[in-house]
Amino acid sequence: VGSLAGVFAAVATPLDDHLAPDVGRLLGHGRRLLAHGCDGLAVLGTTGEANGFSVDERLRLLEALGASGIPGEKLLPGTGCCAVPDTIRLTKAALAIGAAGVLVLPPFYYKSVSDDGLFAAYAQVIEGVGDSRLRLYLYHFPQMAGVGLSEALIGRLLERYPGTVVGLKDSSGDLANMTRLAQAFPQLAVFSGSDELLLDLLAAGGAGCITAVCNIASPLAARVFQAHRRGDAEAAHAPQVRLTAVRRAIQAYPQIAALKAALARITGDEGWLRLRPPLVALNRDEGDRLGRDLERLGVVPALAP
Amino acid sequence: VGSLAGVFAAVATPLDDHLAPDVGRLLGHGRRLLAHGCDGLAVLGTTGEANGFSVDERLRLLEALGASGIPGEKLLPGTGCCAVPDTIRLTKAALAIGAAGVLVLPPFYYKSVSDDGLFAAYAQVIEGVGDSRLRLYLYHFPQMAGVGLSEALIGRLLERYPGTVVGLKDSSGDLANMTRLAQAFPQLAVFSGSDELLLDLLAAGGAGCITAVCNIASPLAARVFQAHRRGDAEAAHAPQVRLTAVRRAIQAYPQIAALKAALARITGDEGWLRLRPPLVALNRDEGDRLGRDLERLGVVPALAP
Repeated sequence: VGSLAGVFAAVATPLDDHLAPDVGRLLGHGRRLLAHGCDGLAVLGTTGEANGFSVDERLRLLEALGASGIPGEKLLPGTGCCAVPDTIRLTKAALAIGAAGVLVLPPFYYKSVSDDGLFAAYAQVIEGVGDSRLRLYLYHFPQMAGVGLSEALIGRLLERYPGTVVGLKDSSGDLANMTRLAQAFPQLAVFSGSDELLLDLLAAGGAGCITAVCNIASPLAARVFQAHRRGDAEAAHAPQVRLTAVRRAIQAYPQIAALKAALARITGDEGWLRLRPPLVALNRDEGDRLGRDLERLGVVPALAP
Repeated sequence: VGSLAGVFAAVATPLDDHLAPDVGRLLGHGRRLLAHGCDGLAVLGTTGEANGFSVDERLRLLEALGASGIPGEKLLPGTGCCAVPDTIRLTKAALAIGAAGVLVLPPFYYKSVSDDGLFAAYAQVIEGVGDSRLRLYLYHFPQMAGVGLSEALIGRLLERYPGTVVGLKDSSGDLANMTRLAQAFPQLAVFSGSDELLLDLLAAGGAGCITAVCNIASPLAARVFQAHRRGDAEAAHAPQVRLTAVRRAIQAYPQIAALKAALARITGDEGWLRLRPPLVALNRDEGDRLGRDLERLGVVPALAP
């Protein structure tokens, strides 16, 4: 069993009018993404607002995904919580639905923790899950989590848990870090959380990307990935430039709110505008401005259902 | 019903040899603190490692506290999670055991969130709990949570939820902030999370302290508080100087690990040395050095059972 590669959306989660996750619309969105260039779905991550969902809400979403007919091999759910027992519970649930892997934040409340402590936390997760099917992708996002993963820690985890720790998503935006990890650890599938670094990371031996912007621009990322795979650097360049432009347009606003505003435009479903507090929607002016930018970039209505 | 005042320990949680919370020893520790100058017990907070416990583990601890015979009016549990539904669930459980109040972190995963978003999150908690007995203490700890509470936000919450939002713990270490809040909002009971600021904050109109060091030095904090209350600033000074010295001794190390090392010395119970990953215990040399410092300061064996 190889590790994953390619283009993954960090899937946004539609909410109902009680601000609870809307399973039906999530499944529809996921299927649309798989039909538009995504190799898989990184559900229940940062972009998916999962850290604002209760453990029970996340378990229910995993069960619904399992019953949906979307193949488990396409799923890479986020399962990392502040509390190791919650992470274990969600990871077991992800395995129960046949997920290809899990994307696992370190416990992120306590700051300035040591590599020894983080190693012990990941070890508790892996041993607490106790399942040879586990394929764990580390999640390095120091700006959001407040806790990052050092190269030394990653090396220790790979050495102790070969075949279980198989990949990493790096959302630091630091290409040098991703490149160093991809080159230091050939057995580690390194994904960029930053669309604009996709081609550079692929060239450095990385595995692909897992991004928010792939909710609205996965065909562009897929063209970058496919062109790179067949060795056609020139053909990869143009979609990368366009993908980067979409990323920049989104980044002019709070990212998850901007993404949901874009999804509302693309799908015509105003329900996408809902976010769970403390996240808030863009105001109408911001949404209109973003919509015009995305039209100019050809993103709207490219993915319309 | 007035708001709380005085000296509260941010109660450390003993773990069993599976690194699960040890209810029996927690209750014993809590009773000892109440007999040694604590006006109340801020259980299940940062120092209590609660952010490393699952929601289910926290619910079980709250139930055990409720059944323990420790009066609910002495309890100020932490209930703030990343996910509002989890916060609501824990807050309801705290009310069910008659807790005097709850100490509530803002949702802390997503960073750079707006005051509007944080207001909406606290509003969802208050309205989701929907109980007139609720007394909510805001928890401002930007260095750990990565999300702080502005004066404007606090003002909006006090205006919208008078009698429900009644206090705040400030662990920023910023006396100017605490003083400003205590003076701007006379209806807000402001507690310092920093022992060394207790007397200064009381002089500025604050309500007391909620600290980790009160697990081992509550009699000193109580002498500061009592002397200040009877207007004897001179008598408050000497215990404040000693309390500050204890705080400095602890702060030379990772705080929760140092506190647990101190509790192991004081009680002779080596089980106190356990922490849940990613937190790790002091090494033996550090523990010995800290022990000698605390003996010199008269803390060991002052609180011995």
